[in-house]
Amino acid sequence: MALIVQKYGGTSVGTIERIQRVAERIISYKKAGHQVVVVVSAMGKSTDVLVDMAKQLMPHPTEREMDMLLTTGEQVSIALLAIALQARGYDAVSLTGWQAGITTEDVHGKARISRIDNERMQRELAEGKVVVVAGFQGLSEAGEITTLGRGGSDTTAVTLAASLQADRCEIFTDVAGVYTADPRVVPAAQKLASISYDEMLELANLGAGVLHPRSVEAAKKYKVRLVVRSSFTDEEGTNVEEAADMETGRVVCGVAHDEDVAKITVVGMPAQVGTLSRLFNALAVNQVNVDIIIQSSYEAKATNISFTVSGSDLNKALDTLEANREELGFEKVEFEQGLTKISIVGAGMINNPGVAAQMFRQLAEEEISIKMVSTSDIKVSCVISAEHTAHAVRALHTIFQLDAKQMAVVHGVS
Amino acid sequence: MALIVQKYGGTSVGTIERIQRVAERIISYKKAGHQVVVVVSAMGKSTDVLVDMAKQLMPHPTEREMDMLLTTGEQVSIALLAIALQARGYDAVSLTGWQAGITTEDVHGKARISRIDNERMQRELAEGKVVVVAGFQGLSEAGEITTLGRGGSDTTAVTLAASLQADRCEIFTDVAGVYTADPRVVPAAQKLASISYDEMLELANLGAGVLHPRSVEAAKKYKVRLVVRSSFTDEEGTNVEEAADMETGRVVCGVAHDEDVAKITVVGMPAQVGTLSRLFNALAVNQVNVDIIIQSSYEAKATNISFTVSGSDLNKALDTLEANREELGFEKVEFEQGLTKISIVGAGMINNPGVAAQMFRQLAEEEISIKMVSTSDIKVSCVISAEHTAHAVRALHTIFQLDAKQMAVVHGVS
Repeated sequence: MALIVQKYGGTSVGTIERIQRVAERIISYKKAGHQVVVVVSAMGKSTDVLVDMAKQLMPHPTEREMDMLLTTGEQVSIALLAIALQARGYDAVSLTGWQAGITTEDVHGKARISRIDNERMQRELAEGKVVVVAGFQGLSEAGEITTLGRGGSDTTAVTLAASLQADRCEIFTDVAGVYTADPRVVPAAQKLASISYDEMLELANLGAGVLHPRSVEAAKKYKVRLVVRSSFTDEEGTNVEEAADMETGRVVCGVAHDEDVAKITVVGMPAQVGTLSRLFNALAVNQVNVDIIIQSSYEAKATNISFTVSGSDLNKALDTLEANREELGFEKVEFEQGLTKISIVGAGMINNPGVAAQMFRQLAEEEISIKMVSTSDIKVSCVISAEHTAHAVRALHTIFQLDAKQMAVVHGVS
Repeated sequence: MALIVQKYGGTSVGTIERIQRVAERIISYKKAGHQVVVVVSAMGKSTDVLVDMAKQLMPHPTEREMDMLLTTGEQVSIALLAIALQARGYDAVSLTGWQAGITTEDVHGKARISRIDNERMQRELAEGKVVVVAGFQGLSEAGEITTLGRGGSDTTAVTLAASLQADRCEIFTDVAGVYTADPRVVPAAQKLASISYDEMLELANLGAGVLHPRSVEAAKKYKVRLVVRSSFTDEEGTNVEEAADMETGRVVCGVAHDEDVAKITVVGMPAQVGTLSRLFNALAVNQVNVDIIIQSSYEAKATNISFTVSGSDLNKALDTLEANREELGFEKVEFEQGLTKISIVGAGMINNPGVAAQMFRQLAEEEISIKMVSTSDIKVSCVISAEHTAHAVRALHTIFQLDAKQMAVVHGVS
């Protein structure tokens, strides 16, 4: 008998029929003798409907009231899933975030979980019940309903698994696992049997979209064994866990790409202490997320700063710069839209210093020019023109031996 | 400056546009210098949508999970109304039932409010905020979300008004107030400027439908001054309050009617101690609501019992009798469908003993035969054949001088 935490996303519980399928799957775990805690998101597009109503009233509703509004979505899901289980003769109880003992920071729209009092969940599990918990939400010390923001339900599931010392945390989603590349772009992409937390973190941050980085960070921190798998098939998923001998198995585990990237260059910033801080502080205040940053000096008293933002943030970024022109004292701003960030990720890179060079060489051979570069221990990212995206991803996927037929062994842990 | 509790029903907040209208009305009270606590129901038919989803999963879902499911409806309304107020520059805060400090019995689907801790509401009011509270819901001592059942939001409003010692409690609904009869049946029906708690209680129990009897009982108990008025017009409504000189003003304040009544007669019940108790206990266990009860003996050892139920409960009642035939030992059961209960209500009846006789005489003159009679201090009810409903209501409305042109003075309290 194992204690398993499962998380089903909005698509997986998007209709009454799908909720019934989720119930059937949970029951198969109960029949196998397991204890199950289930975290669910709001049904399909129900959150969008609520957001839309609020925006009709006010373009930027207060986050406190949005939390009050949006947390109803998960509350509907947990009640319906508990009813679906009860309809099949299985004892189940739904719990809101606060009933499940989830306490968060006193922040709305993006609160972090500060602690979990799992006494109620333990009691319900001891009574043989399936415990169905609303994802994405908690209660602040001040008694306010809060939400965890993007990736919130995954984070709820991982954190509950850590608190309950669950044997594993299964994230059910609409894809079958973590792939070596986006299968829509690379037909030869392979599903990985396993991946390390660090690799998954890089892929998550790079927009592979399967898991939110926050939940992977939490899983890494608390050593929660994660499984990413499809809620529509019985296919084995991808295990995310502490790296074992995986590093030796492959240097690069995946090729990720982020489309819709824009590059901004601030030309002729005064080379003074605090210049960078003022620039990026202004952007942060206006909620512009900056990704890659490169600084280059072209004369003693001035410097050029290049950075990337998502295409949707470009106008906000340009407006912010313009509004702060006087304070920042730059000469001019240049920008380029329609770029892609392409990245290779692999824990084995640490021991293989030639990997970045191999990536640059391959892109050069394909006559794809590199506009920016950023690296970490286990990742190399290049910004290129979007028109080359598919071509570049496929070429790198092949050269790093990720194509289906090439892969020797994926060291899976079952 | 007064402290006013307002309640808006599901129709009043049924669309975004209507929520905006409600916000405008609340703001007019704020501009007049009042403190406002608002209780709202779920938007329009949103509860029906949730119930329908649950029933697709299970014909009779557990009440605990239904409470979890349905309380989301009011939570959506309070958030949207708070946003609508904030959009207009007014400070507002939405509170769920438990955030508003509403504690109920540990029962689902029909819990009664056991106490209210109004500290949070007081604090928010002191900060100048409009406090928007979810109606119909509370929290049990065990930490479970509960609902108050039918008429729940009205009861929330009245109970909050009592707890906060509000100057009045305004119930906004889709009719303009309490009428002397159903205006759809009696075109000459008049809106009452005021009515006593007891009269309102009788009318509420008789199915006048404007207020749930529970909320009127609570208002009477805590001497909360109630106002029933339209959320769509600025018309003055009806005051429900302690009877002043109203009794002297009119003997009968209204004519109510309940359609779809069925009469059941159990013939030849053994005339023993406990017979009645066994009979009505069996019906209560099967959730059959019994209204008028008449017992008549036709021989020493046996008795006939007649009682009325709503037409929708008729089959359940007959099945219950059949299932308990042996234990109850009756001879046979007779029933009649398609009946109407027609009632006159008025606090002045206490001092005017001829009122019932006048009602019977008028019905006789109209050649309408009376099948059952039931009376209280301030009410006389007759069961008649449904085909005579409109005719009977109009005749009684006229004879008791309630027609628009006849009414001398309605002693209103403004």
